[in-house]
Amino acid sequence: MASTDKPDIEASKSEASLPPPPPPPPKRVDYFAVDVALRVLLFAATLTAVVVMSTAKQTEDASVPGLPFRVPVEAKFNHSPAFIYLVAALSVACLYSIITTLASLGVIAKPIYATQFLLYYTIWDVVLLGIVAAATGTAGGVAYIGLKGNSHTGWIKICNVYDKFCRHVGSAVGLSLFASILLVLLVSLSVFSLHSRIRT
Amino acid sequence: MASTDKPDIEASKSEASLPPPPPPPPKRVDYFAVDVALRVLLFAATLTAVVVMSTAKQTEDASVPGLPFRVPVEAKFNHSPAFIYLVAALSVACLYSIITTLASLGVIAKPIYATQFLLYYTIWDVVLLGIVAAATGTAGGVAYIGLKGNSHTGWIKICNVYDKFCRHVGSAVGLSLFASILLVLLVSLSVFSLHSRIRT
Repeated sequence: MASTDKPDIEASKSEASLPPPPPPPPKRVDYFAVDVALRVLLFAATLTAVVVMSTAKQTEDASVPGLPFRVPVEAKFNHSPAFIYLVAALSVACLYSIITTLASLGVIAKPIYATQFLLYYTIWDVVLLGIVAAATGTAGGVAYIGLKGNSHTGWIKICNVYDKFCRHVGSAVGLSLFASILLVLLVSLSVFSLHSRIRT
Repeated sequence: MASTDKPDIEASKSEASLPPPPPPPPKRVDYFAVDVALRVLLFAATLTAVVVMSTAKQTEDASVPGLPFRVPVEAKFNHSPAFIYLVAALSVACLYSIITTLASLGVIAKPIYATQFLLYYTIWDVVLLGIVAAATGTAGGVAYIGLKGNSHTGWIKICNVYDKFCRHVGSAVGLSLFASILLVLLVSLSVFSLHSRIRT
């Protein structure tokens, strides 16, 4: 082995006048596998929330002003614009998660596009976060009135009657909050990944 | 093609002993001046929204169940948890905008810390965006019920009586939406700035 190594050492000495080797490429932290996992989770959470909210339906006997007897009254999610907005926002987020999961898989296959994708991903993720967080707040605020009522404005609580309906709404709002947190994590991941690509 | 390529290859071989010229420094787009301007705007928007919401107070004669005559009833922002949440979130955003404006001015003075600051800025901006967007949605959802009511649940509208109060609430929600958009722009700016620092 030693006899075969010697010529190499001499050769390297003679190469000392040559330019120094280029610096090693920076350690790139891509986390694209984590990114795909989070996006699949986002898909699952938003799809579940849309299904749970869409199936929120309950019919109970309730007293209606002007009628002396109790009549069956149905509670559905599309009776409130806030819940319609939540379903719309979560549907958009669900579709977006499918598209970006496929794009992330494409980036894993061809890493040359990673930097550009990270830029566009982050900005779209932030816009989606704004939409989903606002929808979560809207539905949560209306659901809270349904749960507790508001004595100052005379808005009565309805969750003591429509218990199953309220459980559906509460679950959908909780899942939507989880989706918002996932989007915050996705943006942070992309920003960390971009930051790790900067040569200091 | 083969005959024209040969001289180029020989020329490159003769230059191989020389060190390659250092790569040009990357074109850094910092936009820190725009960043400071947006943060000052965020401060102004959140402070105005907090003041407008805190001064939302109106007393009107209203009929109260159980009393045969109309009594003066006061509407205040702290009668609804949604509006309290909006004031709290906007106060946090206001304080945050002061701190980060000063930090941005510090980065303009000492640009060596810019990359680290951009990383932390972006992540905190995203968290703040989630909080402010959710608060905007919550207050907006409750304000919409006050404006339009909900016939399905029997929640009556109150904005036909408390017009000044509702104008204050609407203005605060609008300013809060503007603050959310500013935060989206701030995150996009930081991400663009980070992206421009990557040597491709």
